Amino acid sequence: MVPHLVTALNGPLLDLEKKILDATPAIERWFRLEWQEHTPPFYCSVDLRNSGFKLAPVDTNLFPGGFNNLATEMLPLAVQAAMAAIEKYCPDAKNLLLIPERHTRNTFYLQNVARLIQIFRQTGLNVRLGTLAEDVTAPTPIELPDGTVLMLEPLERTHNGRRVGLKNFDPCTILLNNDLSAGIPAILADLHEQTLLPPLHAGWAVRRKTNHFDAYNDVAKKFAKLVDIDPWMINPYFGKCSNINFHERIGEDCLAANVDTLLAKIRKKYKEYGIKDKPFVIVKADAGTYGMGIMTVTDASEIVGLNRKQRNKMSVVKEGLEVSDVIIQEGVHSFENINEAVAEPVVYMIDRYVVGGFYRVHAERGINENLNAPGAHFVPLAFEQQHSLPDLSAKPGTTSPNRFYMYGVVARLALLAASLELERTDPNPEVY
Amino acid sequence: MVPHLVTALNGPLLDLEKKILDATPAIERWFRLEWQEHTPPFYCSVDLRNSGFKLAPVDTNLFPGGFNNLATEMLPLAVQAAMAAIEKYCPDAKNLLLIPERHTRNTFYLQNVARLIQIFRQTGLNVRLGTLAEDVTAPTPIELPDGTVLMLEPLERTHNGRRVGLKNFDPCTILLNNDLSAGIPAILADLHEQTLLPPLHAGWAVRRKTNHFDAYNDVAKKFAKLVDIDPWMINPYFGKCSNINFHERIGEDCLAANVDTLLAKIRKKYKEYGIKDKPFVIVKADAGTYGMGIMTVTDASEIVGLNRKQRNKMSVVKEGLEVSDVIIQEGVHSFENINEAVAEPVVYMIDRYVVGGFYRVHAERGINENLNAPGAHFVPLAFEQQHSLPDLSAKPGTTSPNRFYMYGVVARLALLAASLELERTDPNPEVY
Repeated sequence: MVPHLVTALNGPLLDLEKKILDATPAIERWFRLEWQEHTPPFYCSVDLRNSGFKLAPVDTNLFPGGFNNLATEMLPLAVQAAMAAIEKYCPDAKNLLLIPERHTRNTFYLQNVARLIQIFRQTGLNVRLGTLAEDVTAPTPIELPDGTVLMLEPLERTHNGRRVGLKNFDPCTILLNNDLSAGIPAILADLHEQTLLPPLHAGWAVRRKTNHFDAYNDVAKKFAKLVDIDPWMINPYFGKCSNINFHERIGEDCLAANVDTLLAKIRKKYKEYGIKDKPFVIVKADAGTYGMGIMTVTDASEIVGLNRKQRNKMSVVKEGLEVSDVIIQEGVHSFENINEAVAEPVVYMIDRYVVGGFYRVHAERGINENLNAPGAHFVPLAFEQQHSLPDLSAKPGTTSPNRFYMYGVVARLALLAASLELERTDPNPEVY
Repeated sequence: MVPHLVTALNGPLLDLEKKILDATPAIERWFRLEWQEHTPPFYCSVDLRNSGFKLAPVDTNLFPGGFNNLATEMLPLAVQAAMAAIEKYCPDAKNLLLIPERHTRNTFYLQNVARLIQIFRQTGLNVRLGTLAEDVTAPTPIELPDGTVLMLEPLERTHNGRRVGLKNFDPCTILLNNDLSAGIPAILADLHEQTLLPPLHAGWAVRRKTNHFDAYNDVAKKFAKLVDIDPWMINPYFGKCSNINFHERIGEDCLAANVDTLLAKIRKKYKEYGIKDKPFVIVKADAGTYGMGIMTVTDASEIVGLNRKQRNKMSVVKEGLEVSDVIIQEGVHSFENINEAVAEPVVYMIDRYVVGGFYRVHAERGINENLNAPGAHFVPLAFEQQHSLPDLSAKPGTTSPNRFYMYGVVARLALLAASLELERTDPNPEVY
């Protein structure tokens, strides 16, 4: 089932689908060569938006949750990709330490953790959970609705200080599923004998979305040349403001100027392609996640003179991280609809492989709003439905494998950008 | 659906299933380390037999046909594994030349070729077919029942003689799906600039089953120690006779002596485990395939004084290859039943990954007979059915993912044996 595209203008996207399918050999070879030069992040999920005239990544998550929302049919693919990934870092690994988020009472999130454990156990690793939650001082069982029991254990640094693990558990690889919004915990700093995946500077304590989209600019430009499209088709414009203080109304002028500039650039493109929709931009924290601190803006005036409630909303993200850097990003309408609710595709990757995805669907949100909010639900992408491989001869826009292949390609562009971003922002490039 | 095991004695196998599932981390780690030392064959299918008290590979095919019999849900897994494989040999590959069997009128076989093309196209390669059939002197289209058109093209050696390809098509990698029963064709000899997969000495012109099972002995011994089982549980005894001439009744004494020895060894094991079934051995050509030249023998006397028809049957295999080397192998009963027909699992691998499999089912054959014969049909293994990953807590023998995981492990043991076998029989080990 391909979600219904509720837009009058979907010609450009059907054209993009056709170009991408036709160029499959060139595209796959190009990725193959890029992965010879760059190491993909261990895992990654990418939020895409499809406006019918544009398909773009809007968020690249290096600590993906939501693995439990993938169709179970996709699990063998995830296991196979995880095998390839693990082998690269630690072929003789026996033990994998997984460090989850601290909010240990969110059942949905814990189901994601259970799914990750299931995947990595099947690759042949002993997987145990080490928590950063300070109130967990002894092994603590948590029972999930399906009866699975997760055992959270306190992290321990070895006596000589060189390694981290659990009591009687010395891992070769430490997999972070915690995005470090709360900062880099001392217990994880200065580890040299173990592989920390992803590396610390991928966490939101250090990472910036603008660095990611800077790298994505380069990737999109190269790819657009390869398949002969306008890079704007897959790339949202963006700008940046630093040293913002929403509470004290510092930096509003920078925001307003950026909004103005972006809206002008978008209007020009809309005119070029005859797009009648209303341009908008998204203002959001440059660091952080979880759909907090996000505003949809259609005019620069909206960003000046925010009321207290709006300013409070924008000023903090998860774990109380204060917002001072802001990204202003071209908004991409979401014109995909499932049962009349707005839907956006989320694609999951392990190592360089697409291992599944789903549609995030929100019945109460508009086409220009963030869907990563309470009330969202998830519809698994059945990548493998029927004839599971793309069908070159099908009419663009009619078969799900073709649509999903295109989504997988664009998601992998974001994955490649993340890889460049992590190289460029690495504090110790020589040991990378 | 787990096929019904029609045997009174299935305790040993349920025990094996449990041991293998419990040892998953150790097993996967062991394979990971072995693949650091040894290169898996490019692709491979393994015929298994499950007698309830024993589970063993009986044939390891390095030029697998039958990819069309895999469930379509498994295709993404095959594509992902093929991506990993190709990358290893030729990351900058654009073109793949596939050389199929010569019997170009077998629709079933051609559907396998079409499926391979589909898989490798999706990894991003331009795939074309070069044929060894001498009557194909110009591009020749062949239409399959589903409307797919395969284009067979004559092979061409380049002017300087260093490369092989097609007209205007210079491949980096040449994938053989032709087992070279007819000998090594001159057009493929002495290629040094291109990767031929699998290598020429994997073809039946050179390869011997006894070399494979010699290597399998070593693998089975190591693995049995790892999971603490009697290696016999997964390994059939075998012997070898050379310089046989069935027409002239030369070598019957060697055959009879080997049959006697093997039956005595099997009887001893049956006694040890309280197995009441009748031991048998399989006599078959040491080189060659396609279920020709195969006899089921329960007593040495049966091999002496064969009539003309039997001798003719045994003396040639595919492509008229004369049989002079013979393997005498412990027979493994096939006690798996689907709708009261005898079934044997066939597991497919690309690179080091299990990508699917099916049951070969034959309604008219007995439990001690070869099922690879006209009248066989194929039931896809739904590896991914329901909760697709093994369930450690399930009772042995009750869930298909657990059964299939065990089959995948034993099939990978044969894959590893094939890798050792190809190393040991390599005529140019330094360039391997």
